[in-house]
Amino acid sequence: MISFKEISPSEFFYQHRELAGFSNPARALYSAIRELVENSLDACDGYGILPDVLIRVTETKPSPSDVKEFEIYVKDNGIGIPSEKLPKALGKVFYGSKFTLKQSRGTFGMGGTMSILYAQITTNKPLRVWSNTGNGETHYFELMIDIENNKPIVLKHKKFSQQNWRGTAIKINLLGDYVRSSQKIQEYFRRLALFTPYANMVFEDPNGEVFAFKRSVDKVPPPPHEVQPHPKGVDLELLRRIVQRSSSKTVLSLLINSFQRVGRKTALEILKIANVDPNKRPSELKMEEMMRIINAMKTYEKFLPPDPSCLSPLGKELIEEGIKKELNPQFVYALSRKPSSYEGYPFIVEAAVASNKTPGIKVLRYANRIPLLYDEKSDVVFKLLNEEIDLKRYKINEDEPIIILTHICSTKVPYKTVGKEFVADIPEVEKEMKLALQKVLREYSLFISKKVKIETQKKKKNVYEFYLPMIAKFAALLGETKIPSVSGLIDSVKVVDIE
Amino acid sequence: MISFKEISPSEFFYQHRELAGFSNPARALYSAIRELVENSLDACDGYGILPDVLIRVTETKPSPSDVKEFEIYVKDNGIGIPSEKLPKALGKVFYGSKFTLKQSRGTFGMGGTMSILYAQITTNKPLRVWSNTGNGETHYFELMIDIENNKPIVLKHKKFSQQNWRGTAIKINLLGDYVRSSQKIQEYFRRLALFTPYANMVFEDPNGEVFAFKRSVDKVPPPPHEVQPHPKGVDLELLRRIVQRSSSKTVLSLLINSFQRVGRKTALEILKIANVDPNKRPSELKMEEMMRIINAMKTYEKFLPPDPSCLSPLGKELIEEGIKKELNPQFVYALSRKPSSYEGYPFIVEAAVASNKTPGIKVLRYANRIPLLYDEKSDVVFKLLNEEIDLKRYKINEDEPIIILTHICSTKVPYKTVGKEFVADIPEVEKEMKLALQKVLREYSLFISKKVKIETQKKKKNVYEFYLPMIAKFAALLGETKIPSVSGLIDSVKVVDIE
Repeated sequence: MISFKEISPSEFFYQHRELAGFSNPARALYSAIRELVENSLDACDGYGILPDVLIRVTETKPSPSDVKEFEIYVKDNGIGIPSEKLPKALGKVFYGSKFTLKQSRGTFGMGGTMSILYAQITTNKPLRVWSNTGNGETHYFELMIDIENNKPIVLKHKKFSQQNWRGTAIKINLLGDYVRSSQKIQEYFRRLALFTPYANMVFEDPNGEVFAFKRSVDKVPPPPHEVQPHPKGVDLELLRRIVQRSSSKTVLSLLINSFQRVGRKTALEILKIANVDPNKRPSELKMEEMMRIINAMKTYEKFLPPDPSCLSPLGKELIEEGIKKELNPQFVYALSRKPSSYEGYPFIVEAAVASNKTPGIKVLRYANRIPLLYDEKSDVVFKLLNEEIDLKRYKINEDEPIIILTHICSTKVPYKTVGKEFVADIPEVEKEMKLALQKVLREYSLFISKKVKIETQKKKKNVYEFYLPMIAKFAALLGETKIPSVSGLIDSVKVVDIE
Repeated sequence: MISFKEISPSEFFYQHRELAGFSNPARALYSAIRELVENSLDACDGYGILPDVLIRVTETKPSPSDVKEFEIYVKDNGIGIPSEKLPKALGKVFYGSKFTLKQSRGTFGMGGTMSILYAQITTNKPLRVWSNTGNGETHYFELMIDIENNKPIVLKHKKFSQQNWRGTAIKINLLGDYVRSSQKIQEYFRRLALFTPYANMVFEDPNGEVFAFKRSVDKVPPPPHEVQPHPKGVDLELLRRIVQRSSSKTVLSLLINSFQRVGRKTALEILKIANVDPNKRPSELKMEEMMRIINAMKTYEKFLPPDPSCLSPLGKELIEEGIKKELNPQFVYALSRKPSSYEGYPFIVEAAVASNKTPGIKVLRYANRIPLLYDEKSDVVFKLLNEEIDLKRYKINEDEPIIILTHICSTKVPYKTVGKEFVADIPEVEKEMKLALQKVLREYSLFISKKVKIETQKKKKNVYEFYLPMIAKFAALLGETKIPSVSGLIDSVKVVDIE
């Protein structure tokens, strides 16, 4: 009566591609471009390389319809993909390099594969990819995905020697709609460039327009390092695996070797709370004992917060540089907060404000250096700015020409969708975000106060400049003397400049 | 330099359980309960059975902390799970009975498995399950999930004869937080009961409170039927599979046999547009020809809309019955719209309004008969009520004591998250939803007008009732006659009742 079946991960995301941001031709074009670009950037700055990325989108067949076939070509100078891993890395869902405790733009390890899958089901054209890891050899592949079995199908593979290039170049053909996505795509690149001032990016759009973003600094933020798990985030599954794979001789050394922020003293304290013998062999731990260790770790109050070396915030200087470069505002202020954590995952919140040229509050949200453009209303930042923070207290009304920027970086950004559109309101994240926003808004309101003061002074000075010479002239006429100089008087009216 | 790895579907959702609604102990308790209850209801009304569902949540170990171990027990009288399928159905992600073109509460086929997985990683207790398909034999299993390999581990399996029961009963132990979830869970049951008036449901909460919802009608809405795909929703992957598996001798018969709404005449027209020989053997179709058939299907204008027999709307009568039973309002009005479709998926929108006892606009959202309680602001209904529809036109201000209910049922509800929290604003869905809302709001504003009219009339009648007898009395005194009867006069003042 009921029939059951198994489906592969590819099949699942083929059936539910909207979950990953591929809901219609307009959105799919946007998602494919961003996923490929973000993979490219990860392959560069994740390894300390200054990114040079070219993105070229072309119409392959002229068509009167808005929905038509586009070719997307993305080329980077990143570290390249080893040829033996390449087919799976791009042609298999749930296979990738992003499943580690280290900040990267990619999180779910499926953006590239989803782009290729969507291309394939709409145009039947294979992925074409060139990759060179810097060993003088470029590998070329033509790939499709066996969706039912979640396996790459290699249609062609050849290699040739090439000394002058390292990186990856990808070409896919998909049904897209640039008419309905061009605004979002261009906005995406502007926001991305603003937050990646150390990258050269060129986007050539299907209408032949070229958007070139030149790097203005030669400094890549220090790449993040992979770290061991923090004890606060442990669960039974994780501890069981650690026990199974560890070569430690005692439970004591297991804890010290497998977790960050656990030294000998801390480990002994935890094991005492858990009532487990520190000298026991890990393989002899019973489930009940593991549960007690976990409970001890969860309730222990004295751990240092998670090691932030797995994070790579952009930093005050680069954020301000990016905003200046792209927007050239009269005023800009940025900050990085100290590392914090939720459930054992470290995160850092950054925020900035800048004056804008057009009226209205514009919010730019970023997570792990990715601009987030969709579902703003579900994001924690929207909640804070609309329900928690009273903007009037900062003299900001809805017409204020202000840009508010937020960034969260984490080994695990609490996205609520695979499409990475918005950040959940985890209490710890909300608290940090609120403090960051309050601080930058305060700085902005100081700027406004100063601006108002200067304008008052300027007005005053204008009045003096207008009337003093006349008064001097008439006084001289009346007194039948020479007209006295008033320039000294006028200069003495000081106008403080905005630093 | 880069390291790659493969992870299993279980592993993916273990690492990203927040995507499926298991983000913290409070939310996880809510999600586990709803997923198990919804599976139970699907196993009943999906097969024409009047549901009897018991949900008992108990605290297993007293603890001063809000986060503690709970046992969830859910028992139904559904069709049961065949014993040979049971371990995989509950212990393997991406294995299930919900991957068909037929409306059901479950969509992603992973709710049950996720509940069990979450239970296991927080308490290490196995799932215990009893199931009987009505053949006199109950199978009992104790199961855990091998997360790394996405496989069920059967710890115990026995069977015993039992003649008087068919259904499934499930017991899991998980770390939850009822303090922070009780409101949502109770609200969930109230809303579920309102929309399932043909079900008996008893929810016993951890504090010993019993919420009993008795069925008020003995009628299950007609169960949905599985259908063939509609040609508008076809893509290359689907057509390729159909071609591969079909035993049809010609392309013409392939189209007629494999798609709904395609008869001989339509099939011939499509093949003519696609320039493909109708008598060609399907196995000889080239990719290029398949692409042409797909394009012809996408642009062909004369298909009938998708067959709605795979849908099971609740219907005007049952919606109104449910609202009356749970809320006993002065006024209620419900409607079912005609079937519509997006991308080849049929859907039906239903809506209702009712007067409420407390001030304020309360919106109850449903999808495939599931109440949606989270992320309201991202839902298409929120967008419509806040941006598209002017409530003032319907004499509704923000204090109006009104309940607005919406329901979309579809073979594919356009959820944006695996956690099934909100419905995307697909244009076709938005249009139908808007029309439905406008109609019910109009009915509500008529009700208000009538109410105002009646109140005016009542006031008038009260005035007459007060003064007429006095006037009669004084007139009689003055005229020295007997006091005339005024009751006839008073009765002639009509007060129209709200039908």
